[in-house]
Amino acid sequence: MAPPIITLTTDFGLRDPFVGVMKGVILGICPSARLVDLTHDVPPQDVLGAALALESAVRFFPAGAIHLAVVDPGVGSPRRALGIRAAGQYFVGPDNGIFTFVLGGGDWAAVSLEAAEFRRPSVSRTFHGRDVFAPAAAHLAAGISLDCLGPGVSDPALLAWPECRMVGGELVGEVIGSDRFGNLLTSVTAERLGQLDAGLAVIVSVGGRELGPPTSCYAEGREGQPAPIVGSTGRLEIFARNGSAVALLGAGRGTAVRVRRRPVSGSLR
Amino acid sequence: MAPPIITLTTDFGLRDPFVGVMKGVILGICPSARLVDLTHDVPPQDVLGAALALESAVRFFPAGAIHLAVVDPGVGSPRRALGIRAAGQYFVGPDNGIFTFVLGGGDWAAVSLEAAEFRRPSVSRTFHGRDVFAPAAAHLAAGISLDCLGPGVSDPALLAWPECRMVGGELVGEVIGSDRFGNLLTSVTAERLGQLDAGLAVIVSVGGRELGPPTSCYAEGREGQPAPIVGSTGRLEIFARNGSAVALLGAGRGTAVRVRRRPVSGSLR
Amino acid sequence: MAPPIITLTTDFGLRDPFVGVMKGVILGICPSARLVDLTHDVPPQDVLGAALALESAVRFFPAGAIHLAVVDPGVGSPRRALGIRAAGQYFVGPDNGIFTFVLGGGDWAAVSLEAAEFRRPSVSRTFHGRDVFAPAAAHLAAGISLDCLGPGVSDPALLAWPECRMVGGELVGEVIGSDRFGNLLTSVTAERLGQLDAGLAVIVSVGGRELGPPTSCYAEGREGQPAPIVGSTGRLEIFARNGSAVALLGAGRGTAVRVRRRPVSGSLR
Repeated sequence: MAPPIITLTTDFGLRDPFVGVMKGVILGICPSARLVDLTHDVPPQDVLGAALALESAVRFFPAGAIHLAVVDPGVGSPRRALGIRAAGQYFVGPDNGIFTFVLGGGDWAAVSLEAAEFRRPSVSRTFHGRDVFAPAAAHLAAGISLDCLGPGVSDPALLAWPECRMVGGELVGEVIGSDRFGNLLTSVTAERLGQLDAGLAVIVSVGGRELGPPTSCYAEGREGQPAPIVGSTGRLEIFARNGSAVALLGAGRGTAVRVRRRPVSGSLR
Repeated sequence: MAPPIITLTTDFGLRDPFVGVMKGVILGICPSARLVDLTHDVPPQDVLGAALALESAVRFFPAGAIHLAVVDPGVGSPRRALGIRAAGQYFVGPDNGIFTFVLGGGDWAAVSLEAAEFRRPSVSRTFHGRDVFAPAAAHLAAGISLDCLGPGVSDPALLAWPECRMVGGELVGEVIGSDRFGNLLTSVTAERLGQLDAGLAVIVSVGGRELGPPTSCYAEGREGQPAPIVGSTGRLEIFARNGSAVALLGAGRGTAVRVRRRPVSGSLR
Repeated sequence: MAPPIITLTTDFGLRDPFVGVMKGVILGICPSARLVDLTHDVPPQDVLGAALALESAVRFFPAGAIHLAVVDPGVGSPRRALGIRAAGQYFVGPDNGIFTFVLGGGDWAAVSLEAAEFRRPSVSRTFHGRDVFAPAAAHLAAGISLDCLGPGVSDPALLAWPECRMVGGELVGEVIGSDRFGNLLTSVTAERLGQLDAGLAVIVSVGGRELGPPTSCYAEGREGQPAPIVGSTGRLEIFARNGSAVALLGAGRGTAVRVRRRPVSGSLR
């Protein structure tokens, strides 16, 4: 049988040994667990940022993978700690909306991680990643049933999720983040683009500035000119060849993105 | 049997392949070793910083874990290379005080890593992490006895360790570092706080500035106001909710920290 | 049998989950693969930088190791995707010269990664690391023969490789990069230095500035004074004790490096 996989997503950074400590706790409980870092550079306390990173990544992991996510500004307050089973995988983290993207459909089960025997004997009020979440993920990896970890939860916290909607024949969405290359990610998905029923014959604007039509690979872009592209996660992105769309457009999370059909004739700008 | 765990702590950063090279050497000798990064972002040559990171982390690893630490400004000079067994775990690194925290008690054994058959055939004068320490850790993981790695050492180098002491009814300590969230760590421990016999009825001051009394979780803090808290490693810390105590207090390693009992009546400031 | 090793080298950084996603794809195909990060902080699109990092690292991995490298400005363009067997190891990445250092000799075999059954079912035009390279590396790790991955390639792309040459009795090379400590790496190798047949009785100059003779370990350097040393990878390096040679010399990739024999008598400066 393949060894169990646990991914880790936090805002802990890699400067301090917090992530290593969680791994020590996990390996003490489940020595065979395979540990994969998704990112530890979520901006401090950016729950939505972590949720979006997870949403883009988890589908590329095999069935049974356990996703441990700790961006947890409410640690030590009464917020619950969750274990979730959804879409054939597991999710462990605080009840603050970080798993909103798997809780949208009806096919999930969740528990509150209260069973004392599956926590560390002494639980601090400042590091549940180590004392509550890492043990829960490790026990799941070791074969403990989700139901054993605590009582069921039917009303997990949800974030307002950045969507896009059709307004007067236009798709209206927003920038949801950026990546290390300065590419902007948007809430406009390839699926919604398809509903415009216009192929790539559309015009994308970001923050009111019209860009050229979508390109199909980075190499087609022109230097210094931001251009739309359907990115590798199925979201509309804005990139700039050999440059940063973030810097060129001065855009960031929340900047408006609009997509309209290109007129059959007429110039682009 | 659980596969052996080797943790890695260095000041090598992750920009260059130095850490990966050590892992290649380790896996060539002990293919089953489980490798866990504690941190590679110790400030260059900050031996005390590495020692403090290790001290906070190693207790969360299972018995038998091997901790490889390379912050080594003296590489190539006559300083010894050490293998240590203490508290049921192993430690491998330069003899410069980086393991002071396990050498304080009487329950340790140490050797100088001189046995040629457990080093790389050719030992450089600039990268003992690769040529001496990684092989030693890997051979320990593969089951070689510590005693085989070289002659015994009875006088390892020790650092002056940041402590706290009672002075005229006050606990006097110092800031020992900070973390990625801008929290300040201090040399005042929960254990020593307990000796004040005052519960949380104490007043903490940092660099001469009095802070409020200790809070019990981050969510209890007030924005923009640094507050003490007993952190997850049992040390008194100073945090600022949604902010940086480092920035607000202008404090860093060595800044004085004082804790006194709160007067029974009277205002805090 | 030892589990297969796959190393990863990219310019993806660790802020986004790109690297984690590649690992998810790999473990879905080959659950036993051991994953080792070489570096993900190659400057964006710096193919030569990645090649130099790989060249310095791969020899420290055991036979059979698979090196996955994705610095890929041409992703989505018609550039080929390569699998290479050379020197008892495997290399997987874009055909842009990133493996120049193993293609210099005659002892290699390469294929173009075109076999659809060893790619992800749907291949994006922007993330071949996930859709083409990670699956190829994982299938190699799982025991698939290189020849199955696609048709042979006899003319892989090559980079102009930074060398050093003898000019009028002097070795003339260049700075090829720097490391996290501010050390400069040069294209002058210990082997070429040996051909000067002068032991360490040479004078090194960087960007026209004469430095002292090579030292044999960092501890021999003087503060604030850049000094040459034969580094751990067999290249001539320039370091500054407790400082940065990069900052002190204002040098970077391409800066000229010259080595000449020291006159039998006469002052160094």
